[in-house]
Amino acid sequence: MNTLIWNELDAAGQAAALTRPVQAVAAQTRDAVAGLIAQVRSEGDAGLRAITQRFDGVAPDSFEVSESEFVAAEAAVSAELRQAMVDAIARIRLYHEAGMAQPYSLQTAPGVTCGKIIRPIGRVGLYVPAGSAPLPSTAMMLGVPAQLAGCPQVILCTPPRKDGTADPAVLVAARLTGVQRVFKLGGAQAIAAMAYGTEQVPACDKLFGPGNSFVTEAKQQVAQDGAAAIDMPAGPSEVLVIADAGANPAFVAADLLSQAEHGPDSQVLLLSDSEQMIAAVAIEVEKQVAQLGREGIARQALDASRLIRVESIAQAFAISNRYAPEHLILALRQPDTWLDQVQAAGSVFLGDYTPEALGDYCSGTNHVLPTAGAARAYSGVSVASFQNLISVQSASAEGMAAIGPCALTLARAEGLGAHANAVALRLGVQP
Amino acid sequence: MNTLIWNELDAAGQAAALTRPVQAVAAQTRDAVAGLIAQVRSEGDAGLRAITQRFDGVAPDSFEVSESEFVAAEAAVSAELRQAMVDAIARIRLYHEAGMAQPYSLQTAPGVTCGKIIRPIGRVGLYVPAGSAPLPSTAMMLGVPAQLAGCPQVILCTPPRKDGTADPAVLVAARLTGVQRVFKLGGAQAIAAMAYGTEQVPACDKLFGPGNSFVTEAKQQVAQDGAAAIDMPAGPSEVLVIADAGANPAFVAADLLSQAEHGPDSQVLLLSDSEQMIAAVAIEVEKQVAQLGREGIARQALDASRLIRVESIAQAFAISNRYAPEHLILALRQPDTWLDQVQAAGSVFLGDYTPEALGDYCSGTNHVLPTAGAARAYSGVSVASFQNLISVQSASAEGMAAIGPCALTLARAEGLGAHANAVALRLGVQP
Repeated sequence: MNTLIWNELDAAGQAAALTRPVQAVAAQTRDAVAGLIAQVRSEGDAGLRAITQRFDGVAPDSFEVSESEFVAAEAAVSAELRQAMVDAIARIRLYHEAGMAQPYSLQTAPGVTCGKIIRPIGRVGLYVPAGSAPLPSTAMMLGVPAQLAGCPQVILCTPPRKDGTADPAVLVAARLTGVQRVFKLGGAQAIAAMAYGTEQVPACDKLFGPGNSFVTEAKQQVAQDGAAAIDMPAGPSEVLVIADAGANPAFVAADLLSQAEHGPDSQVLLLSDSEQMIAAVAIEVEKQVAQLGREGIARQALDASRLIRVESIAQAFAISNRYAPEHLILALRQPDTWLDQVQAAGSVFLGDYTPEALGDYCSGTNHVLPTAGAARAYSGVSVASFQNLISVQSASAEGMAAIGPCALTLARAEGLGAHANAVALRLGVQP
Repeated sequence: MNTLIWNELDAAGQAAALTRPVQAVAAQTRDAVAGLIAQVRSEGDAGLRAITQRFDGVAPDSFEVSESEFVAAEAAVSAELRQAMVDAIARIRLYHEAGMAQPYSLQTAPGVTCGKIIRPIGRVGLYVPAGSAPLPSTAMMLGVPAQLAGCPQVILCTPPRKDGTADPAVLVAARLTGVQRVFKLGGAQAIAAMAYGTEQVPACDKLFGPGNSFVTEAKQQVAQDGAAAIDMPAGPSEVLVIADAGANPAFVAADLLSQAEHGPDSQVLLLSDSEQMIAAVAIEVEKQVAQLGREGIARQALDASRLIRVESIAQAFAISNRYAPEHLILALRQPDTWLDQVQAAGSVFLGDYTPEALGDYCSGTNHVLPTAGAARAYSGVSVASFQNLISVQSASAEGMAAIGPCALTLARAEGLGAHANAVALRLGVQP
């Protein structure tokens, strides 16, 4: 890991210290994804089958998970894992439900009522990765808000395993959150199928979920084409930890590593005003990483990671807001007193006993979060991500009399005669 | 206008009847916009100056509106227009403020608190068109929610007029909503400047506002590049009116025309179960369009527009939901009893005395709305569009004891050893 002292860096060095390892999609990836999407659009299921054979080594007749596969999945999942999913889902539901937007309505003038009604998005598609690790937790994080929103049509795609089946834990998580239809499709081809529809896969209005570079590039391309909306742009996962001298170096090291193990392009940053803490964390990281099953991946991620000494915790927040991390861990004494310093982040973890892993799985918050600095202008997935908020207004003749003249003046000023006319006709005046 | 009978159309005919006039961006526009963006990125203000000279016929040294220009604008706007803007802004503020999300927090388990904090997006850029008509109303619609969100840095771009000044009403509207910095820049070059920054124009995190095909394509490209988020994809404006036999044909015709006058590619649709109503509206449209200053534009839009006879009002809602109009006018008796049929639309107008023009200007709702069917998965601009919602969680040692085992089980199931370790260390157990 690279140790840096912030105030000894010039502006270029500071910018470099906050540069994400992967910032641009290779032209090669873009073209490959465009090719896959085109194939799915032109060939439908036959194209899906050919692509799935090529990437996953299986070519099922039916992509959709059958009822007997769901039954088999239930049998394959241990009682302990099933219960953990049930418990996690309950907390995720509790948290997400409490944050749901409510319809509202008010009088803005005598006889003029304006409000907002809330409708679920009609057809949504969830993507659950299963590359180096299948992620039933992602099925929970997407399935719960879709269910709370009341989306009438929810489908889920997850890559098939070598034997042609889907990961049983993902299937159980899907069903526990009310997702009835699951398709064994992965990568850009799954995104293309959900965006444009094929014989077997219904087209969706909006697509959700993380994925590898092919999946995220495919999401961008179908959104750009207007075929489907997407939850947010996505890049590799990342964490920024701000630790003071009182933090526990073993805990901090463990948190950095639980980000690093996600993938070789994950990024982990530690900011601390304590030289001793930084040194102690570096030692702990070295000790812990050697014990990991995914040591190779974690070591690659650590190569691009940084331990940065700052002159004060306040400076650490300024740097963090500039970086806008997906995950922000505050390993600080009285961490809640620092919360008002947070301007841009996906999800914040307060204190020594709130590792990112809690939010990844079961504190209740969502783990589908903006990466790559997108937290400057995007929020994580919530129930609102699965809803349309629709404005409604209603004016009586009295209401028209109250605000019509205002509209008339503005329409005239903008030179929009038909707008003026629509109001004038109701007011019984000249436009 | 084209009159169709829905039930006499086959599936292809029905699909054609709901096809928007402009669905795809010409490759030529895409390339031209990419060229303009590249020029602004490489040449900065000099590039902006050259492009502005080319498109707007002026090349100001400073793009930013000076204080003396703001003073001159105040003098140039009539007291009546200024008052109309003040009144409209008050209602827009009332409506938007009532719909603001609130931070929240709850216990999801003993010792585990999860919540959401709300932060304004740091740097936002507003675009106000001024092509065939300058739109001070758009400055109000973007300025009010930006101000309510508390965005610390708000800039606005609007094209210069031939004499090098900005439209005075736009400037007054900007200042009335608290926007301090306005730049005389239009088109793709304005979007590029706000996304990447130049010597004079600060880079923004998110860009808002409607525009012509160059502006909307530029927004897509900078969003795709990850340079800035955007409010929503955009296309030509559109209205769908559902009218029953009791509607007022003159009112309905006026509403169709106030959409048609926006641009030659605007689309207007009328759905009615009454043959007489459709015939009467057609006559009224012909009568009214001849009176319009923007008759030429309106007539072009009408060419692509349709009057569709449906067998029932219920069928009209099914068609409307499939089309997902930006504006939906319910010229129905007891229109509120039909509201639960609305699944996808940008903004809904109830009854005979609520023309779209009220919402365009001053009912209180926002007029920056999803077009081109995007209302299936996007909502109009609101205060939330200018905010980041950030998850926060905090577990005590007790909280870790309560939910840590759940996280541990899930981490093990996903094969993520470092995640398991981060929890196990705190629990004092083996990972």
